Amino acid sequence: MPKVIIDMTMSLDGYVAGPNDGKAHPLGEHDGMRIFDWYMAGPMLPGDLDILHPAAGVDREVVDEMFEESGAFVFGRRTYDITNGWDGRHPVNGVPVFVLTHHLHDPIDMEGGTTFYFVDGFETALAEAAKHAHDRPIDIAGGASAVRQALQARCLNELVLDIVPVVLRDGERIFDDAPEFHAEAVEAATSPLATHIVYKIT
Amino acid sequence: MPKVIIDMTMSLDGYVAGPNDGKAHPLGEHDGMRIFDWYMAGPMLPGDLDILHPAAGVDREVVDEMFEESGAFVFGRRTYDITNGWDGRHPVNGVPVFVLTHHLHDPIDMEGGTTFYFVDGFETALAEAAKHAHDRPIDIAGGASAVRQALQARCLNELVLDIVPVVLRDGERIFDDAPEFHAEAVEAATSPLATHIVYKIT
Repeated sequence: MPKVIIDMTMSLDGYVAGPNDGKAHPLGEHDGMRIFDWYMAGPMLPGDLDILHPAAGVDREVVDEMFEESGAFVFGRRTYDITNGWDGRHPVNGVPVFVLTHHLHDPIDMEGGTTFYFVDGFETALAEAAKHAHDRPIDIAGGASAVRQALQARCLNELVLDIVPVVLRDGERIFDDAPEFHAEAVEAATSPLATHIVYKIT
Repeated sequence: MPKVIIDMTMSLDGYVAGPNDGKAHPLGEHDGMRIFDWYMAGPMLPGDLDILHPAAGVDREVVDEMFEESGAFVFGRRTYDITNGWDGRHPVNGVPVFVLTHHLHDPIDMEGGTTFYFVDGFETALAEAAKHAHDRPIDIAGGASAVRQALQARCLNELVLDIVPVVLRDGERIFDDAPEFHAEAVEAATSPLATHIVYKIT
């Protein structure tokens, strides 16, 4: 099994999205999009889900490293629906994405060579991702439900948190029902907009 | 007014203490003391509130800097009661501590030259601390209630969070009712046990 990584952006009060996320508010109400200002190198507008916009400086290095290293992504269905597969402009060219869903359908090939696969159940997604990842890391990239399933499955080798100095007050948290795990911080780097911490899970 | 700093240790899920803190569980149930392993350079035992134990490496540098720079501390009454004034072995020799309480009594002089003052109301504590701080920073050092009052008072210049890779699942959080504030991360350093982030509040 390749290395399994959770990579999440989180507010100071522990939210990975504001409340009631949906197409109108992709990262929830309470202006949840703010938590990705670091990713966009500035405010992200509703509807502006072209995540090819580059981050800057330290933030950019973190994004580049994540995209260069990853061999497969696992997303939740809501994340896929809300972003509408990023309208075919998905940034992870050539890297397959496994979408968790009870409503299976055929894989979808995107521009740039990415294929979206639809799989039922986290364990299945992980097994399929492992087959396609060429021994590179499998990145569990959200949303909150997919991350909680990864924590429950105790399959994690690395946790990357991008902590942003924003208070959302309500929304989706990822650790509320997490089983015990032992983590050590191995790396931290910060920009004004986000502090990137890498934890090894042992 | 000198610089006002909040300095708090927080779990990954945003708790600064476990539930039901008290003399038996100074940092709450769910083994809340774990969040101060970084401070103690190892596990802290119940009753072992001799906070003169040195942290190590990066963690030690953060503690030393905080103690060397601070001109006054503000604590909540519960923090004072639970620690019993650290049995007179308070580490901030010579630096006055202002304890928030509705039950006023005379100042208490500790070994080492620290004086504990008992003041009613956060604004009063801050004004008194400012008089004694010799223009050095006033450090709001907990507990959660004192920190929430500082956030509500919008008096903050700097927020220092020591984020520890521990999940407590329940207890005391500090940002739940916080007013909007604008923060930028200016510094981050990590040990395996804690990531220390300094935010400027603008």
